[in-house]
Amino acid sequence: MNVLDILDKKEKGEKLTKEQLQYVIDNYLNGNIKDYQMSAFLTEIDLLGLSEEETIDLTDIMLKSGETLNLGFDNLADKHSTGGVGDKTTIVLAPLVASLGVKIAKMSGRGLGHTGGTIDKLESIKGFKTSMTLEEFKNQVDKIGLALVGQMGNLVPADKKIYALRDVTGTVDSIPLIASSIMSKKLASGAKNIVIDLKVGSGALVNNLKEAKELANLMVEIGKKNDKNIACVLTDMDEPLGNTIGNSLEVIEAIDTLKGNGPKDLTDLVIKLGSLMVSMSLNVDEKAALEKLKENLANGKAYQKFKQWVQAQGGDINDIPYSKHKKEIKSNKEGFISHIDALEIGKLSRKLGAGRLNKDDIIDLSVGICLNYKVGDYVHKGDTLATIYYNEKEITDEEFLSSYKFSQEKIEKSKLIIDVIK
Amino acid sequence: MNVLDILDKKEKGEKLTKEQLQYVIDNYLNGNIKDYQMSAFLTEIDLLGLSEEETIDLTDIMLKSGETLNLGFDNLADKHSTGGVGDKTTIVLAPLVASLGVKIAKMSGRGLGHTGGTIDKLESIKGFKTSMTLEEFKNQVDKIGLALVGQMGNLVPADKKIYALRDVTGTVDSIPLIASSIMSKKLASGAKNIVIDLKVGSGALVNNLKEAKELANLMVEIGKKNDKNIACVLTDMDEPLGNTIGNSLEVIEAIDTLKGNGPKDLTDLVIKLGSLMVSMSLNVDEKAALEKLKENLANGKAYQKFKQWVQAQGGDINDIPYSKHKKEIKSNKEGFISHIDALEIGKLSRKLGAGRLNKDDIIDLSVGICLNYKVGDYVHKGDTLATIYYNEKEITDEEFLSSYKFSQEKIEKSKLIIDVIK
Repeated sequence: MNVLDILDKKEKGEKLTKEQLQYVIDNYLNGNIKDYQMSAFLTEIDLLGLSEEETIDLTDIMLKSGETLNLGFDNLADKHSTGGVGDKTTIVLAPLVASLGVKIAKMSGRGLGHTGGTIDKLESIKGFKTSMTLEEFKNQVDKIGLALVGQMGNLVPADKKIYALRDVTGTVDSIPLIASSIMSKKLASGAKNIVIDLKVGSGALVNNLKEAKELANLMVEIGKKNDKNIACVLTDMDEPLGNTIGNSLEVIEAIDTLKGNGPKDLTDLVIKLGSLMVSMSLNVDEKAALEKLKENLANGKAYQKFKQWVQAQGGDINDIPYSKHKKEIKSNKEGFISHIDALEIGKLSRKLGAGRLNKDDIIDLSVGICLNYKVGDYVHKGDTLATIYYNEKEITDEEFLSSYKFSQEKIEKSKLIIDVIK
Repeated sequence: MNVLDILDKKEKGEKLTKEQLQYVIDNYLNGNIKDYQMSAFLTEIDLLGLSEEETIDLTDIMLKSGETLNLGFDNLADKHSTGGVGDKTTIVLAPLVASLGVKIAKMSGRGLGHTGGTIDKLESIKGFKTSMTLEEFKNQVDKIGLALVGQMGNLVPADKKIYALRDVTGTVDSIPLIASSIMSKKLASGAKNIVIDLKVGSGALVNNLKEAKELANLMVEIGKKNDKNIACVLTDMDEPLGNTIGNSLEVIEAIDTLKGNGPKDLTDLVIKLGSLMVSMSLNVDEKAALEKLKENLANGKAYQKFKQWVQAQGGDINDIPYSKHKKEIKSNKEGFISHIDALEIGKLSRKLGAGRLNKDDIIDLSVGICLNYKVGDYVHKGDTLATIYYNEKEITDEEFLSSYKFSQEKIEKSKLIIDVIK
């Protein structure tokens, strides 16, 4: 076997055996297959696809390239989001479902993108520690039902190396490569119950519904083949989620939501994802789960669990930073908001300092944007569209306003939850 | 402009502008675009193709990436072969057409393959020098009508760098990449008249007729767009060309052919390619050119020109090495030969030491294989199929015999010249 024969076979449209896929991954990790050869292989997959069987094999090979976690809890649930602007879902969802007895032992990432990742956002709470030993992690899950860390063990090294290459070779948008990357990591983290929030739209990795459904079906299939309970929720990402974009601003909005006072879209999403996690993990009816989740947002139990969690990880909930300056941006137009460009808003928040361009950039946890209106709302000229929270770096009114489109005809509110595949 | 946008555009099937292609080549040469990104780009081209216009643009950009030769002769002709087992055509063709007044100022390569390249073969003549200054090169062409060297100037550096990458990323078989590679080099060497010998068959770069015609038409189009006279001859490469494979053995066969005693296939090919070169360069009728070439093989003028050429480059025609040992291989079967696997015979000659596996390998110029029969010949059990010339390394009878197939029904001789496209 050699890499040129495998590249040739793939080029001719032949199916690769598990042994051949294993050969490629093993030899890429040990350096015998070079970056330029792996890049040719990834480009072939990007253009020609992989069969479902090949994708399942590839996921299994990647999964087994490193350590896997087995914490020994059977009602353990995990959630993954493909990433969106203003996405603070995990910060609400984790304590909410934990308040009903679902165990959450979650690893999250830092964001290389418009805003920070969940880890960055949580670190805006003073003292919040995002690293701990495996023993501490397990004990915390056992004691209070949830823990969240940045990294834990050497999970899926194949994905780390391949993802870095995909990022610089135009192969991030391949459906089977996305599926194997996400699922190998989810399987390695050991939860029996998995819910995936797959964002669809202009600000997302996948921007059309057909591909989103294909990806969702593939991930569900991989999950089932690995004996997991799994559901994939397709959600709209044409406008930012909730009203805030920026690390500490998003934590504050998450807290409001945990107290039952969150924006409708974020609340609806958290309840939908949560009901799937609860029903899978505790083997209850989805509708009953949904009602219990609403109750726990209303009766304070979700927020109590959040406080308990922050305290367990050393955070001071009363010490969340605000920016030094803020300014309001007034609408220069009148009408129904027909579009808010999520990607553009994300880039503007990064310009303020809320996100990273390079992985070693230090982000400003206190800056960001708070939106007063969403798509479908009617706005008069001079109404305050948004508040910009900033320190050193600013953005102009013109930059901000160019992300908006208006219509004189009534616009329907976006339907956040498009489909559930399980 | 950035490489990820260009990769994305190509993936979507959009046509690339000349500026975008220029951006890729310039930035690959200066190191801003990395091997792994270029490999993704080459793989996209391999799988999705390039339009004729894109290929013409790419060829022009590669051509202009380095120096070009302009020797000032107007009846200058050049010939390129896509490479085959036993291909000693240039050694016969160059002095033959020069004996009629066509000027030949040729650069040839060393072979990384089954046998040496033309340069290696000529170096089996003791003293033959394959490097000289531009001034010496030009003077020799002016004085005796032909000169042949290994390298001259920094021609087409883009092709050198890209070819090395194609070789290790499974992208050598892309039609537009082959066309731009061959044609950029031919255009850079400055001849007005170009004949390309495009091999088709199991031992060749292109193994089906449809792709061969596509490639031929593309190269002819590129040549015409660059104001060249050009013809592309499609020739069969299912069995070795002539009877010998191995460096000094091929020189000896070339000499026999120049004396009018060569094998029929090699003689026919040389006369066909030569008639195209002569008719283009001296503006005479192709049939008349063909007759004159036959005359010069018969009357000794072609061989006289060869001797003059070897002498001018310092070679001693009476000092060509033979191997220390030889052995005959007898047929174990009876019937018409239906197939001789050119690629396999090539690999066996490399096993004897006649070719390189790695570019720094030293080759044994004296070893090789001489075939007594070709496809279509009838052979009795015990007839001597071939003689193996060897020194240290041997091959077994079984290895050799496995390259042959026999038939009890009469087999037609292969038709060497399949088509001429011009």
